[in-house]
Amino acid sequence: MSMTDKVTVALDGFGAERGAEALVVGARAAASDGIGLRVFGDPRELSDLKAVPGVEVIDTTDSIANDEEPVAAVRSRPESSIVRAARDVAEGRSSALVSAGSTGATMAAATFALRRMHGVRRPALAVRLVVPGGEVAPTLLLDAGANADARPSDLVQFAFLGAAFAAAVLGVERPRVALLSVGEESKKGNQVVIAAHEQLARWADGAAGQPGDPGFEFVGNVEGRDMLAGTADVTVTDGFTGNVTLKTIEGTARAVADAVRAAARSGPRAALGGALLRPALGGLREQMDPDATGGAILLGLNGVAVVGHGRSGPDGIANAIRLAGRAVAERATERTAELLERSGATRAALRDR
Amino acid sequence: MSMTDKVTVALDGFGAERGAEALVVGARAAASDGIGLRVFGDPRELSDLKAVPGVEVIDTTDSIANDEEPVAAVRSRPESSIVRAARDVAEGRSSALVSAGSTGATMAAATFALRRMHGVRRPALAVRLVVPGGEVAPTLLLDAGANADARPSDLVQFAFLGAAFAAAVLGVERPRVALLSVGEESKKGNQVVIAAHEQLARWADGAAGQPGDPGFEFVGNVEGRDMLAGTADVTVTDGFTGNVTLKTIEGTARAVADAVRAAARSGPRAALGGALLRPALGGLREQMDPDATGGAILLGLNGVAVVGHGRSGPDGIANAIRLAGRAVAERATERTAELLERSGATRAALRDR
Repeated sequence: MSMTDKVTVALDGFGAERGAEALVVGARAAASDGIGLRVFGDPRELSDLKAVPGVEVIDTTDSIANDEEPVAAVRSRPESSIVRAARDVAEGRSSALVSAGSTGATMAAATFALRRMHGVRRPALAVRLVVPGGEVAPTLLLDAGANADARPSDLVQFAFLGAAFAAAVLGVERPRVALLSVGEESKKGNQVVIAAHEQLARWADGAAGQPGDPGFEFVGNVEGRDMLAGTADVTVTDGFTGNVTLKTIEGTARAVADAVRAAARSGPRAALGGALLRPALGGLREQMDPDATGGAILLGLNGVAVVGHGRSGPDGIANAIRLAGRAVAERATERTAELLERSGATRAALRDR
Repeated sequence: MSMTDKVTVALDGFGAERGAEALVVGARAAASDGIGLRVFGDPRELSDLKAVPGVEVIDTTDSIANDEEPVAAVRSRPESSIVRAARDVAEGRSSALVSAGSTGATMAAATFALRRMHGVRRPALAVRLVVPGGEVAPTLLLDAGANADARPSDLVQFAFLGAAFAAAVLGVERPRVALLSVGEESKKGNQVVIAAHEQLARWADGAAGQPGDPGFEFVGNVEGRDMLAGTADVTVTDGFTGNVTLKTIEGTARAVADAVRAAARSGPRAALGGALLRPALGGLREQMDPDATGGAILLGLNGVAVVGHGRSGPDGIANAIRLAGRAVAERATERTAELLERSGATRAALRDR
């Protein structure tokens, strides 16, 4: 598909924590950018979408909730919105899947319907970490939660998946890839990280331009303190550490922002200062808004699947759809598969000792 | 030792990144609080300490640097400052160890000299996470980096170690203990966390007031987002995740603070606002300063050992010494040993399946 073809996204019409209204407004914004949409949801709740050009609402009543066991639910409910939307992509009527509902159900439905890319053992969730202030390039963190347990070879594959995505969709020519760890030295980390470091270092060593060139630069370990300092384009970790880290960043940013707000209420002088500073801080608030990133993208499948942030508002929904559209237009899936094959980083080639 | 006895701290006179001057000023401040000090360092660099009442400088020339392999260095250098200071505690001349040098060397020296408490498999580093704004009670995070790999039974022991310290030194009557994970449900997490959750839940179930009462309340899993929200007094995790989390909090707080500062430089109006707001933000800066916490304490040994934050200034050194002094005065070691024995949470009683 070339960039001028129209992209059609299959959108889960349920599961947005902020309700159908957020879905409707977000979908309309994405449609006005020229992205086609097939929305699987309740036509009454989504009635405002019916008249929008390029948007089709497919009457769906069943949906999988956040608190259900995702794999069992996806297996047993073929008519639920997320399963139908994923099937829509698998059967070629849509070219990407987007959901603001249960992350687990979206991952399960996408994995069953789209299948893993040849040679990939585990798909991974990737999220761009936007740095407040906007002067530092965001790093792509993966795995942000698809696999709570990972082997060293999984981390090596995540490096390839993240690098291919950064090159294809984020426009980074030769991405710098780092491993998240507890020190910069190669022997710092838990056993999985130390083994992955060894494998990645061997791969990167002198392979540039050679057969086996990984297409990225391995820059070694990065610590939590420096992850937001722009030293790597892609930061690789297991899904447990990645998810904890992602939520720790959110929690810390919120705590600091709350404290600044409290300081600005602590007296008339501070209140005046806060009022004068507020316009300049507006951009900061926007950057820290999870809606800005468009959510997480599932890498390693034969197709594009994006999970919106749990509390996505209209902007979050629209940006998730745009991210999916960009991934399709930039041929992210095809380019990732090419990189894996060309560099030989497929499952069969990776061994854990 | 009762609270009225004088506490003597063995202080490593090397390793402070900000130099001997920070050590001297910090030690003097702690000594003026009535804490006795035996400082193992270079008498020329520490000459300003010689006249201070209650402070003794013990001429020491060898020291272990940050980039040395800690276990090998500690084993082979009996006259290095950290090894001599640890021996001073083991042989009863001092009652606690404090270092602002290499965390690894301090842990190794303390573990060799003080030995693990009966029934403890792995000591853990505990750090108080101060929440900006100061309205939320800080949680005690452990392990913050002593063990990159942990078994489920290690996490269970960390819960007991942290709870005993919170009760003895932080004055929390029946600490609420949480496991750091990726969701609140008991089955969310990696395999180690899920197994630890099961063991802790079984322990806590109906044992209150019974033999086997753990002396704390297990409140289940906490996510990275809520760790700073005051829901638990003690947060338990493995040393890899704990260290990454701790440094991620530092990095995020710094990025947000930098962004606020940048906003306050973005124009004359914002600059005036920043100037008016600055005094109210002063407390926030102090709270976010790692110096405020006094560093990390190593739990699970037959004695008190505190590692100052790597970049400790004078306040950080003084607070690390005060933390050690408080732990001795409050009989933290003895009370932890009692809790482990009484509740039966010793190594022999804990089994990983």
